This record gives sequence, structure tokens and C-alpha cells, in this order.
Amino acid sequence: MIENSPLVRKLGAFVALSDSELSVLTSLHKRRRTFVAGRDLVLQGQSDQAAYILASGWASSYKLLEDGQRQIVDFQIPGDFLGLRSVLLNVSDHSIEPVTDIEVTEIHVDDLLGAFSQTPRLATAVLWAASRDEAMVVEHLVSIGRRDAAERMAHFLLELGARLALVGLGSKDGYACPLTQYLLADALGLSAVHVNRVLRQLREAGMVTFRDGSVVFDDYDQLANFAQFEPSYMDQRGPLLQ
Amino acid sequence: MIENSPLVRKLGAFVALSDSELSVLTSLHKRRRTFVAGRDLVLQGQSDQAAYILASGWASSYKLLEDGQRQIVDFQIPGDFLGLRSVLLNVSDHSIEPVTDIEVTEIHVDDLLGAFSQTPRLATAVLWAASRDEAMVVEHLVSIGRRDAAERMAHFLLELGARLALVGLGSKDGYACPLTQYLLADALGLSAVHVNRVLRQLREAGMVTFRDGSVVFDDYDQLANFAQFEPSYMDQRGPLLQ
Repeated sequence: MIENSPLVRKLGAFVALSDSELSVLTSLHKRRRTFVAGRDLVLQGQSDQAAYILASGWASSYKLLEDGQRQIVDFQIPGDFLGLRSVLLNVSDHSIEPVTDIEVTEIHVDDLLGAFSQTPRLATAVLWAASRDEAMVVEHLVSIGRRDAAERMAHFLLELGARLALVGLGSKDGYACPLTQYLLADALGLSAVHVNRVLRQLREAGMVTFRDGSVVFDDYDQLANFAQFEPSYMDQRGPLLQ
Repeated sequence: MIENSPLVRKLGAFVALSDSELSVLTSLHKRRRTFVAGRDLVLQGQSDQAAYILASGWASSYKLLEDGQRQIVDFQIPGDFLGLRSVLLNVSDHSIEPVTDIEVTEIHVDDLLGAFSQTPRLATAVLWAASRDEAMVVEHLVSIGRRDAAERMAHFLLELGARLALVGLGSKDGYACPLTQYLLADALGLSAVHVNRVLRQLREAGMVTFRDGSVVFDDYDQLANFAQFEPSYMDQRGPLLQ
């Protein structure tokens, strides 16, 4: 049921999609594939890849430097595109690795660009999704540049929660989260030991508990205030395009 | 002459625009405005703003935290959109300040989204431009997260050079650059003193000289190698869409 897919829920926050637009979106889903955790599905520098829509599971996008250092740019959750930017830019500027086993649908860039001419509102919705992805990367830049370790972690957990809530996988109470402390460390520019210490601080302050694969917001408002979390870029108040 | 505008040159690297597509692009330019250096034209949190296309001059986009710290996200040069992401996201997630006096053309979001239905290839071109902007923010994230100060500066100067070359304002010899050491510091997460020291190191190594408003690549290839600069995301080999 495409109507209930995470991507439709997400794009629907921006553009109220008609039945015919939904059917174009359905026709893009060429084939369903599964990838196991830990095996890259897109490699930095690759130039012939497809794009994917994540149906279930979590992935990470990251860049490797020549000296072996890794920076995780973002995590992807159901409803997110994988590798859309890479397809448009010809050459992938990053790698994508599944964090859990994932299910994706593959889409071909020619089909996607073709769909834009049939349904320009779909192009607008995809541009919105890309803008939102960019806004998240901007927040990560600000976090690494200017927020201390605890604020950075708090902001990150809140942002993930808002994204998951939009596709029905989380709430202000919390969410299931498969990320390890090593992944958090590579995303936030901290060591795993530091991640552990910061999570303990936030827990002892009564704001958030991340343990055994689940994030529990013990005091959402206090945490949001502490992180100066401004969710306006994630949290549309109804579609802009009716 | 819109055909020679920086935006047309830039989008033309991705989509070979027809005469009728060019005329739609022209019709978007509602009015030309000028802004003086140092006075914000978009404010973080603002929700009723237009978007702009930068015709001449340089601007900076940045985020302020509540404690007054500033992180510059990127600089904009002729041909770049200002505030496109903010318009799509309803609320601006950043501020934009002219670095020099600038000339812009104002476009209204309704006109832009309307133009997509007339000319879907324009939507694709704008999506490409947004993807490229995102790829640059990703590079800045990797720089601040993982590159040391000298590599960060080298990468930044090379990226700006590639962007300027695409719109006819630079080459592998160098380019005119109005950025102060304070602006460089806020973009790269360094102090102004540190910026000064790093620029001296790069100059003494015979790689690049930034002095009196101009960047001169003394040894482009050595600098690119030092910064591990991979310009594939900036440097299209001819349009993807014919």
C-alpha cells in the first residue's frame, strides 16, 4: 500500500499528493531489494549507481578521507532517499552503509526525471525533501562547529525523534534506535568513551535515556531547551502546496 | 542578457536550457534590488521572505546560536540562490548577510513553483543546484569534523575557485576574493589569528597566496593533492540532461 509508505507520509507533509501523482510515485518503484547490515550499497566515487528509497531499516551516509578517518554525514530512516544527490551529481560524493538489514526500492534516475515532467508537483516535493536533508546537514555542521558535546548529542537525538515521528516511528515519548556508540561517535565527532559519558550526563540530568536500543525522552521540553532545538525545518504545519 | 547570467551558466552545466526555458527563467526575475554590505537580507526564523538570485557581489549564510556564537554555513557567489531552502521550508533556518554590496533579483516562490509545471526541466536544474549546495555543506562538515586547519583552508579555497570558474569569475590561476580573515575564521571554525598563520604556511609552502583581496594558486596541483580535493561534485563534464 503505497499510500501508507513512509515516503508518501513524508512528502505529504509538504505536497498534498493526488491519486494520479501517487500512481506516478508507485511506478517509480522498479524493484525491491534487501541489503544486509554493514555492506555498502553506494561507494564514494562510484558513478553508475541507482537511487533508492528506504522502506525499512536504518542506513548511514559517510565520507572517508584518504588517511582512513570517517565522518558520518547523516543517518537515513524509512521514507528517505539514498543516493539521490549522487545520481544528480553523476559521481557519488559519499558512501552509504546499512546500519541494520534494510529493504529499499530502487529507482532509476531517468524514470525520476521523466516523472517530473508528468507531475511537476512531485519535483517540488522532491526538492523540498532535498532542502530538508540539506537543513539537517547544516545543523550537523553547526553542532560540530559550535555546540559542546552534550548539546550536540541532545540536538541529534531530538532531530532523529522529529524525523521518526513524521513517518510514524516515534513520538515525544521516544523511539527505537539501532545506533551504536561507535556510530554516534563518528557522526558527532566524539570518541566512543565521550559518547558514553555524555549519555550518562543527559540521563542523570533527567532529560533523556538511551539504553538497550531505545531512546526515552524523560523530559522533552527541558531537553529541547537545553539543545536550543528549533524544529521548524522538520515540522511542517500542513502542506505548503494544496 | 539573461543568456549570459551567472545562473544560466551554472544551470547550463547540468541542463541544456532551450530558448523557451530561458524565457521562463527570465520571467521569474521580478525586480532587481541592491543591498549594502553587512545588512542582513534574510533573518533566521523569518517566515515571509522571498528568494533571490545573486547577480553580483558575495553573500554569506550563517546561523547564530542563542549564546551569540556564529557558524558561517557557506558563501554565495553570482548565480547562486539566496534563501531558496528557507522558502521551501516555510521558516528560514539561517540568516543571509551581504559580504560586499550586492545586486539580486527577487523571485517569488509561487512563481518558481508555477514555472516548474511549465518547464519541468527547470525543476530538475534547480534540484541539481540544491544538491550541489548540499554537497558543499557536506564538505564543510567533513572539513570541520576531520580535516586539520591547513587542509581545511586549502579545501575551502579550491572549492571557491571551482565554483567561481563555473560562472566565469576564476580559473586555476586564482580569483578575486573579498573575504576577510574574520569571515574565514567563522566559516572554518578557526580563530582569526589561526587563519593568518595557516595562510602563511600555505604561502610559504608555495601552494597558494591570499593577499590584498586576491587568491593566487601558486601550485594548483600540489594544493589539490594536499587538500585531497575531489571536485567531481562541482565540475560537471557537460550537461546530464540534453
